[in-house]
Formats: sequence, C-alpha cells, structure tokens
Amino acid sequence: MLTMSADYLRKVGTGIGVGFGAPRAEAEIVANELVESNLMGFDSHGIIRYTDYYTNVQKGKLIPGAPIKIVKETPTTALVDCGLNFGAVGASRMADIACEKAQSVSIACVVSRNCNHVGRLGAWVQQVAERGMFAMATANGGKTGHIVAPWGGKAGRLATNPMAYAAPTSGYPIVLDMATCMIAEGKVRMLMHEGERVPPGCVQDPGGNPITDPVVFYGPPHGTIKPFGSEYGYKGYGLSLMVEILGAAMAGEYSSREGMYTNGFCLIAVDPEAFSGREFFRELMDDLVAYHASTPPAPGFDEVVLPGTYEFRTKEKRLAEGIPVRDEVWKLVCEVAAKVNVDVEQRQSDN
Amino acid sequence: MLTMSADYLRKVGTGIGVGFGAPRAEAEIVANELVESNLMGFDSHGIIRYTDYYTNVQKGKLIPGAPIKIVKETPTTALVDCGLNFGAVGASRMADIACEKAQSVSIACVVSRNCNHVGRLGAWVQQVAERGMFAMATANGGKTGHIVAPWGGKAGRLATNPMAYAAPTSGYPIVLDMATCMIAEGKVRMLMHEGERVPPGCVQDPGGNPITDPVVFYGPPHGTIKPFGSEYGYKGYGLSLMVEILGAAMAGEYSSREGMYTNGFCLIAVDPEAFSGREFFRELMDDLVAYHASTPPAPGFDEVVLPGTYEFRTKEKRLAEGIPVRDEVWKLVCEVAAKVNVDVEQRQSDN
Repeated sequence: MLTMSADYLRKVGTGIGVGFGAPRAEAEIVANELVESNLMGFDSHGIIRYTDYYTNVQKGKLIPGAPIKIVKETPTTALVDCGLNFGAVGASRMADIACEKAQSVSIACVVSRNCNHVGRLGAWVQQVAERGMFAMATANGGKTGHIVAPWGGKAGRLATNPMAYAAPTSGYPIVLDMATCMIAEGKVRMLMHEGERVPPGCVQDPGGNPITDPVVFYGPPHGTIKPFGSEYGYKGYGLSLMVEILGAAMAGEYSSREGMYTNGFCLIAVDPEAFSGREFFRELMDDLVAYHASTPPAPGFDEVVLPGTYEFRTKEKRLAEGIPVRDEVWKLVCEVAAKVNVDVEQRQSDN
Repeated sequence: MLTMSADYLRKVGTGIGVGFGAPRAEAEIVANELVESNLMGFDSHGIIRYTDYYTNVQKGKLIPGAPIKIVKETPTTALVDCGLNFGAVGASRMADIACEKAQSVSIACVVSRNCNHVGRLGAWVQQVAERGMFAMATANGGKTGHIVAPWGGKAGRLATNPMAYAAPTSGYPIVLDMATCMIAEGKVRMLMHEGERVPPGCVQDPGGNPITDPVVFYGPPHGTIKPFGSEYGYKGYGLSLMVEILGAAMAGEYSSREGMYTNGFCLIAVDPEAFSGREFFRELMDDLVAYHASTPPAPGFDEVVLPGTYEFRTKEKRLAEGIPVRDEVWKLVCEVAAKVNVDVEQRQSDN
C-alpha cells in the first residue's frame, strides 16, 4: 500500500486528462472529482477510473474536450447534451446550470444526454448544498449495463441506478448517495477475486435462484443483482425505476434499446429561500442534525451518524495522513500515464 | 364482512364530512380520497379514518372548512398553509397548484404548513401523472409520531415518512408509494390484536434490542420501528431523513419540537414537455413498461409487475364486485355518522 497526497494525485490526474486531449480546466474537473472520491473513501470511484477512461477514449466512447450543449431550455430546466465528454465535465456543468437557475427561479431540473460515467453521484448534490440549496440526483445506466433484475424477475432490466440528495447545515452537508440495488457489481467482482462469498440475498443465478458464489454469478451466462430491500425489494425496485424514468424517458432514450450514454443524469435543485428562507433553513437543519446525533445508540453501535458523516471524517483523515493507494492501482494508473506520455514517479510501496 | 359500492361509501363519507362542518365540495374531496384508498386495497387509509377525523375535529386539531392559504409564492413554488383543514383538502389544493405551475413553468415544488393527515400519498402524485407529468411527493410527521429510530439508534426521531412518485403511461400510471421504515405502526398494532408476531428485523424494544413480540413493542415504554433496508438500513434512514428535511426544515418547522401539523407534505411536479416532450415521454414510458413486464419471472413469481399494478387491479375488481368492509369498521363509521346526525343503513354482514 502506498500513501499519496491529494495534491499529488490531482496533479497526476490532471496530467493524464490533458494527455487524453482534454483542455486543462476540464482535466482538472475530472481529477478533482476522482481524487475527492478517494478522499471520501470511495476508492472504487477514484483514480482507478483512469484505466476505464483510457479504454473508452481509445474506443471513441469518451471524447475529451467535446462541447457541452444545452439542447432544450426553459428558465427552470435544461436538457444538456454532454457530447460524450468526461461524465464529470458534463455533470459539473449541469450542476452549475442547476444552481444558476435555482438561484434565479427557486427550483431547477437538468437532465443529460450522451453523458459518460458521472462518478460519485453524491459529488454533484454536494456542490449544490455547498451553495446553500437542497438537491436530489439520479443516474441510470444504458442497456449494456442492465444487470439488476426487477422485483420478481430473473433477467436484467436496470443498472445499479444510484440516487443521491444533499442539504446544507452549518457543518458538513448531509449527503446520501445510495445504489438502489443490493450490491455494486464491482463489489461482486472484488469478492470473486478474493475468493469470498457474496452476502445472501444480493445476487441470483441466470435462473433467478439465490446464490452466494460470485463465480456462478459471472457465468457465462451471468446472473443478476437484486433490487435493494431484501424481502421488501419491490420498494428498491420502485426507486430504481424512478431513476430509470428520470435518466431515460425524461432524456428521450428508450430503456429497451442500447444508447450512446453511460449515465442518464438528472439533478433537481431547490432553493429554500422560496420556503423557510436560506438562513432559517440552515438553522432548522442544524436542529435536525443535533436531534438525530443525540439519539441513544442501539446495542452494537457507538453513535448515530447522519448520511455523509463517515465520508467527511475519512476525508479529514486522508487530507491529514494521505490517501492509501494499493500497489496494483498505482501500477495501472502509471501504465495509463505512460501511454499518454505523462511523467509519474514510479513509487514502490513501503509495505 | 360487508360488501359496499364505492358510490354508496362516497355518499356516506360526504354526508359525514358535511356533518363535521365541511363545505360539500371539500367533504367530497375527502370522501373520494378515502374511498379511492379502499378501492385500491389500502383499507387502513380508507373510510375507517373518519373515526380519527371525528376525534380530531372534537379536539380542534382538524378544522373543516378552514381556508387553504398560500403564504409565500414564486412562479415555481408555493408554501401553503392548510389551516388544519382535512389533509386531503390541503393536499388536493396543493396538487392543483403544483400542476398549474408546472404546466406554466415546467417544474414546481409545493410545501405544506399546518397540514393534517394527507392519506394515501400515492393519490397526489397520481393526480399529477394523470395530467401527463412526473411527480414526486414526501410526507413527514410531527414529533409526537416519531416512532422510527435512526439507523443505529434506539429512540424515535422520525415518523414512517412515506415517499411516492408517479409517471404517466398509455395505461395506468406507474405509482410507487412506500414507507421508508420496515413496517407501518398500524400493522404492528393489527398483529398484536391478532396475537401474531412481527416479522424479524422490523422492530426493537426500548433498549434497541430486536424483538418480534408486538406486546413488548407497545410497552410502555414503547419500542421503535427500524428504518427500511434490513442490514442496509442506513439507506432507508437516509431516505427517511430526506422526507423529514422536505416536510420540516423546508416548511419552517423544527424537527425536535412539537408542531401543529400531522404531515409535512412536499410535492414536486416536472413537465416532460421541457425535456423529451409529453407525447414522446409517454411513448418511452410505454416502452419501459413493456421492457419490464417482459422480464421472465424468478422462481416463486408468476410475473413481473410495475409499481401500482396490483393496486389498479384491486380497484378494477372492487369497482366491479364492491368493496369488502369489515363489520367492525362499518360499525365505527356508523357510530361517527350517528354522532353527526347522518342517516346510514345499519347493514348486517351476510357472512
């Protein structure tokens, strides 16, 4: 395990992005977003992603520097064609548009077309909350990634379809970022590599039978992931379907057909100024946080924490102590860097 | 068990509402909403509610005929004081406001103050979907009803906090209406009366220990309900908190203090015309429905159904065959009717 600073990783990441052909400002957006994921402990959404991004650039599925265009607009809404630029570049621009509109007309909804992987969904609602507003976001996935079965089904019809929201407080914002399925596909793959079992109730074989063996899950033919909610999975299915509606039908995509996009991103921003007022809203949010944090813990728990708390604590720790980076991950990032002629220190782990 | 027609129940309900002092048009809104719940199989949210409403009218907590006032407004938003009128009257008016605004400026958000029990939350998003738009709604509850513990906690800080959404199709709309906790409090009470156990993982005693005995749950002191999601209940907790934020902080209420309201209702309506366009949106929704309904069922399931399907089937059946009404329920409704001098047939069950 290596330990690296966020600044250094951002510098390397920006270099790689520029090496891919992105304008520096856009390469910085991508690097900031990926390193922020590492800082907050979402390493699966961190700098490791440069390997996928490289592959997608090579395949023409990711077009660095592609213009982000508003194709349909009202004072409250925008349908944004992200042109297959980096998902973070599209989502960042969309978050800006949503904030500007919401500040001007109290509420805004932006929906993407041709958007690549937006990374950590919580990042974008967090940006809105940091500007004093409430935000909700969803990200569906195109047909190729339909690995989640509807409730009661045995074939994939949905992606992991995360949803997120954030609200400002006087401290860190509340940020919930959750997949609407039982387990991330990447987690199942990791368990397979580690020779471990998948927790019961998460995945099923192609026949729809419950399994815990990740090797059986991958087949081929591969199995499916169940919607969130265990024996009440019809609720998670319903939520996943909402994510699909906002990312596909709202954007103009057929759910049953393969599209060009990776994520169909929808972001709704609401300005509390139109309701309780921004300052009073924040005061009420602080009251809510205190009320919840004061809950006596149940056996087996040390404390009650609000959504996002662990992640912000991880960020503080990693800013102070550095970001742990697995040797294999660093090796992969270095390989990508070498391919685009970016000079990176070929560090060795101390462990 | 009695069997009664929707028309007759609406007539009786309207009479009771007028007897409570409501203008006829408002009494009809309440009766329509309650009987619609019966039709769709949500009998716990049906005509039985007149007993609670009667009690609340007596206590001055429900004020029939109270004016519904917009206390703060922008072209996209409204903060609506429901004046402690029937929740259905307030919510119905708010759904109208949201639809008018969304039709005019593409998206709208309305938030309540002093709102009584809004009944079946799905009813209000369904009304928006029936007008061709997408809608999402949430309903939190005041401190008295905080019977749901945060994830990892052993004291109540939240109500059952349902969330709902609806989207139009060429057939019935998709309607999801779900509590963000493991089980409704009314269900626990019913299980206690029937001498049954609560399913594992749903409730805990005042010490935060898992229990299945509803008698222990009620104490006193009473226990708490766990947030939705079983071993991943932090997700359900996060969703419940979102419902609380939109119903309390957005409305101007302190979560930690007792308010006058029963439900803090928030409704967001989005007009697809601003994105894919209403007609194309509906076509894409039909494609989505067909794609999902075609999923081969997993073992133990006959078919994959979309959210709301069972409820609309129940409605068709009950419209054709009548609504089953338990003798005790009818007796209670008749008692309320008698108290407000409404003439009701004192039918006896055929069973």
